[in-house]
Amino acid sequence: MSEGPLVPETRVLAVASHVVSGYVGNKIAVFSLQSLGCDVAALNTVQFSNHTGYRQWTGSRVSAQEIADLYQGLKQSYLDDFDMMLSGYVPGAAALEAVGQIAQELKRKAESKPGSFFWVLDPVMGDNGNLYVAPDVVPVYKSLVHHADLVLPNQFEAELLSDVPITDMSSIGRALQVMHERYGIPHIVITSVSLPHPDHPVSSLSVVGSSMTADGRRARAFKIVFPAIDCYFSGTGDMFAALMVVRMREAVHNNHGGGGGGGSGGEGLMGRASWLSDDSVDALDLPLARAAEKVLASMHEVLTKTAEGMDGVVEKARVGAGVEGAVVVDGEGAGVGAEAEKKRMHLLKSKAAELRLVRHLDSLRFPKVEFRARRSYGRG
Amino acid sequence: MSEGPLVPETRVLAVASHVVSGYVGNKIAVFSLQSLGCDVAALNTVQFSNHTGYRQWTGSRVSAQEIADLYQGLKQSYLDDFDMMLSGYVPGAAALEAVGQIAQELKRKAESKPGSFFWVLDPVMGDNGNLYVAPDVVPVYKSLVHHADLVLPNQFEAELLSDVPITDMSSIGRALQVMHERYGIPHIVITSVSLPHPDHPVSSLSVVGSSMTADGRRARAFKIVFPAIDCYFSGTGDMFAALMVVRMREAVHNNHGGGGGGGSGGEGLMGRASWLSDDSVDALDLPLARAAEKVLASMHEVLTKTAEGMDGVVEKARVGAGVEGAVVVDGEGAGVGAEAEKKRMHLLKSKAAELRLVRHLDSLRFPKVEFRARRSYGRG
Repeated sequence: MSEGPLVPETRVLAVASHVVSGYVGNKIAVFSLQSLGCDVAALNTVQFSNHTGYRQWTGSRVSAQEIADLYQGLKQSYLDDFDMMLSGYVPGAAALEAVGQIAQELKRKAESKPGSFFWVLDPVMGDNGNLYVAPDVVPVYKSLVHHADLVLPNQFEAELLSDVPITDMSSIGRALQVMHERYGIPHIVITSVSLPHPDHPVSSLSVVGSSMTADGRRARAFKIVFPAIDCYFSGTGDMFAALMVVRMREAVHNNHGGGGGGGSGGEGLMGRASWLSDDSVDALDLPLARAAEKVLASMHEVLTKTAEGMDGVVEKARVGAGVEGAVVVDGEGAGVGAEAEKKRMHLLKSKAAELRLVRHLDSLRFPKVEFRARRSYGRG
Repeated sequence: MSEGPLVPETRVLAVASHVVSGYVGNKIAVFSLQSLGCDVAALNTVQFSNHTGYRQWTGSRVSAQEIADLYQGLKQSYLDDFDMMLSGYVPGAAALEAVGQIAQELKRKAESKPGSFFWVLDPVMGDNGNLYVAPDVVPVYKSLVHHADLVLPNQFEAELLSDVPITDMSSIGRALQVMHERYGIPHIVITSVSLPHPDHPVSSLSVVGSSMTADGRRARAFKIVFPAIDCYFSGTGDMFAALMVVRMREAVHNNHGGGGGGGSGGEGLMGRASWLSDDSVDALDLPLARAAEKVLASMHEVLTKTAEGMDGVVEKARVGAGVEGAVVVDGEGAGVGAEAEKKRMHLLKSKAAELRLVRHLDSLRFPKVEFRARRSYGRG
């Protein structure tokens, strides 16, 4: 029971979308961060009724000017004293530039105190070969990532940032190398990698992470392979990013003495720019690896429990919604019968696939680590 | 540790303000509800940088139309299957009417299944004799409260709703009676009552609660006295309301067998309109009393811990902010020196008084109940 908070006092600025119902963007990030003890300032970039995977939603976006104004509001009242920042989905290039300005200002403010501010950037651009932001957002991310301390692209976003087509583990290594060298990004985790490799059974996914060496010229890459769950969930990237914020902080905080990489004075790694471990630290001993292991453990538990509950949720919703084709949902007319039923099932399944984390607080706080970091073959 | 969620599956629609930094409105309600296991749909009525007690803030309000649209968005995707609703601060009469429409629609939808929907209404209008909403908001609340199942006015708001000036415990009793009879409000808790009474040492506050009898003609009133903490906190009303949502649900759920009042079939109290206990149940045995005891226990722990940490927070913020009058904050010119310093101290203290609940999760989940419901003398 009384385990207390898991990380030292941590004040996080979380910038992402808000949905009234369900769990994506800040709606999942804020709770994940708070349940692990972070004081979160949540700047919402949109307020939508639900996530866009439902294919219908209402609500509105927050303009670039409003984002800048909200930050100004924090600043004028001494509320900009952040230890970390997490940025996720931002609608459009202008709004993203406003968010980038905030991050850069916080970086500048922390310059005289290395390690006192850490930006985790989730470059939300698309997935599986499809862009889901406007094309002019891509160059804005490319101009911003060198300010970030940890960047969390998925496989497609890593291709966009590195211009390296990712087809095997060796090209993953090259993409990491390019991101370290070209942008000087200290820490990278490429999420949801799905590539053929002897280590990867068909039903598995992996993440590949790396912390660069001090000169920025060498990647130290590890991978963590975990079982895929046959279901399309939304919000997994946002949950991954939020948990990485806390677990990275925790791993770095626990790093002095043991575990390798600490030892530069009293504050250890926490007092170093970008919390970057000594070059002598092996990939498998990186705080980034420890953090990713815990995050994936939490995610695997929550996803498994969500999947287990899904059929029940669909059934309950069907009953609640009137069921059996009896109700025709909206006035779009056209597809009554089969078409309407198909739409209804898509909506009910989308709801059932909402991540069930509030009832699995222990999975967030005390996950059992099963999947360990391993060497990533074929680095560039 | 692995205690699991505390209440049965509960889907709550929470409608209130959002602040980026700090803990009032939905920012505190959503986390309170989620940490106790509720699936929360959070409809934010404003997004401000911080609460208005700082005396400066940025951000914007959500219009009545947007509130209605967001709800429409939920409805069209079968996301309006709420067990409970909590409504807090709503900016302006038109927006409040939109929120009232939502609550009434949810009530109507649940008519055929008594007890399947429960609306907790916090009629945010003012405090200590001062209105802090536009005067035209008051009649809108008066027109809405008879749809609510539990209403949570503070002492001033209870006066506004009942038209009874509250000067002693006997007038509190009359105010409760009027609210039960005139509006048919099943459950009421008047929060932060500060009245002279032999039971109340100078440094204490109390809440006074009542669940009406089936005919709506008799109040069953109890009070809970607890020590006041000498500090002005914001967000306490919002936290109280959110925790009441969960603890009322929990108390009603645990009510069948023992504790009095259950026993109308398999679902017990949960299957009755407004979860109203039999007339034979004594005030001190009401689920409302059990709920309020737990809520006050949580609040007392969180407020005590917040107060303990305040000096440290102010000091840290002073250092972080440049301190000692060195920085003049904004361009308003005029009051440099003393005036600017006074403003800065107000801002730093406001920040230090933000409720520290994320690091005291156990106080929310497993509070130690110390202050028990007692008979409220002098009911009407």
